[in-house]
Amino acid sequence: MATESELIAALKEIFATSDPKVTIGIGDDGAVVAPTQSSNVLAADMAVEGVHFNRAWSTLKQIGAKITSANLADIYAMGGVPKYLLVSAGLPKDFSISELRELATGIKEEAAKVGAYVVGGDISSASELVVSISVFGEVENPITRSGAKVGDVVILSNLTGNSAAGLIELKLGINKGPFVAAHLQPIVKFEMAAEFAKGPTRVNSMSDVSDGLFSELTNIAQASNVGIELDTKLLSALPGFGTLSFISEQYGIDIWDWILNGGEDHAFVATTSNEIPSDAIKIGRVIEGSGVSVLNLTNFNPGGYRHFGK
Amino acid sequence: MATESELIAALKEIFATSDPKVTIGIGDDGAVVAPTQSSNVLAADMAVEGVHFNRAWSTLKQIGAKITSANLADIYAMGGVPKYLLVSAGLPKDFSISELRELATGIKEEAAKVGAYVVGGDISSASELVVSISVFGEVENPITRSGAKVGDVVILSNLTGNSAAGLIELKLGINKGPFVAAHLQPIVKFEMAAEFAKGPTRVNSMSDVSDGLFSELTNIAQASNVGIELDTKLLSALPGFGTLSFISEQYGIDIWDWILNGGEDHAFVATTSNEIPSDAIKIGRVIEGSGVSVLNLTNFNPGGYRHFGK
Repeated sequence: MATESELIAALKEIFATSDPKVTIGIGDDGAVVAPTQSSNVLAADMAVEGVHFNRAWSTLKQIGAKITSANLADIYAMGGVPKYLLVSAGLPKDFSISELRELATGIKEEAAKVGAYVVGGDISSASELVVSISVFGEVENPITRSGAKVGDVVILSNLTGNSAAGLIELKLGINKGPFVAAHLQPIVKFEMAAEFAKGPTRVNSMSDVSDGLFSELTNIAQASNVGIELDTKLLSALPGFGTLSFISEQYGIDIWDWILNGGEDHAFVATTSNEIPSDAIKIGRVIEGSGVSVLNLTNFNPGGYRHFGK
Repeated sequence: MATESELIAALKEIFATSDPKVTIGIGDDGAVVAPTQSSNVLAADMAVEGVHFNRAWSTLKQIGAKITSANLADIYAMGGVPKYLLVSAGLPKDFSISELRELATGIKEEAAKVGAYVVGGDISSASELVVSISVFGEVENPITRSGAKVGDVVILSNLTGNSAAGLIELKLGINKGPFVAAHLQPIVKFEMAAEFAKGPTRVNSMSDVSDGLFSELTNIAQASNVGIELDTKLLSALPGFGTLSFISEQYGIDIWDWILNGGEDHAFVATTSNEIPSDAIKIGRVIEGSGVSVLNLTNFNPGGYRHFGK
């Protein structure tokens, strides 16, 4: 294994930034960034080898990008804009500098998509690869899970379930195609989340779908003291449903388990009493009561997403 | 193992805060905190079982407190004040809720000492216990490693080496006493670091000693383009030197390896051209040139601290 100072030198080079707001970057006891006018939003995500990813399936660049996008999605789900990342990594003893470079490049490039930078972190040895990222962002008007109002329309940025389908394909030995890509390198619709947060849509509640659509909507219903009707007929009309349905039949798997319980797509689900953006899809409505009712579906098993390996 | 929602409920309860600046705490996609006037300072630390701690020696409360104090020390070393923490943890399969409570209580209580709060984080399963903490603080005038000036006096908050001595004792089967305590539950002099950062001392450079005094001063010398003279005669006059010397002779270990290479005491070392606080100790001076010269010592092996198990 390379020495800690060699690893840090490599990271310093990869994460170098010319952002004038980063007063002090990697290499001191901490990073210093310029003050902000708005409130600050903070979120953290940890990914562990064998639980969240499998190095036989994913490149290190994909692993870095995926954990980063999950983190960035949390900030967007709060109506915020991510700015700075701290990355801590536990590295197996045989982890090389070139492997670390690949992991770091995946993180850096994903963050760069939204104008965010890695400004610090820590490295340690560990028996399995562990990547822990914290994101620090800005938010003017936070959007929580507790703001859903009776009469709101439930909207979704894109169909969920593709990542879960890709995981099944990987387990079956299929290592390419759109579903595998959705699992290994999800394309998260950050721009649509930003559109959800602003007028004329200005949603009342929002969450990113990391643990399954049903589970996230259940959280919103509970936090907002409302009920939610989720209409599978509306979901069936979404772009991509046909293909997903085709392969679910091929594998003999219930498509609704993928769509409603599948995690890690990091789609954004929200409720609004305003205009629905043209790209977003209406999937239900907020009603009086509690819990989530799934309309036009028999035999649904609410499960919630279990990460790989669990 | 408890379910994720049971674990999160326990953490929500332990980390509950009434700080009005925490607008949104644990339980949403991210936490939201009030904006700050000053710049923000960010730092992260990761601790891995078998590398940074040994559960046979430390209680989970001690493990939580120690990783937290290391993180807080980074913020103080920048001249900042820690405010909010994000805690991510990888938990072994047999980790119970009561164990998580103990770990979290150690983190919470250490943070509370300086008025900081845990506002979020993540949990995952993992094959070994991993604790990853990020701290977000405020800083008006950051103090870096690069500000040391020729003519500065080098000052230290407290004698280093006690933690390294404690580690040796633990390896010898001794499980109590002041050195063991210094290793398991270091008392970090946050207040003195705050005094270093302000006038009338207002240091020109500062670092916390996590990887050994010699190594940290080498970093300061390099970053500041100066040389540093470290006088072992001055270090020998420090409170605690006598006892440390006594036990080092007993175990046949070079005391200077403990003092100069021992890590994890999280003492604060700084250079100043102003007044020296009454509790701090002068240990050397900043000169023209490069590198660290150790005065009044023959046969010193610069080593740098290796964490437990490596």
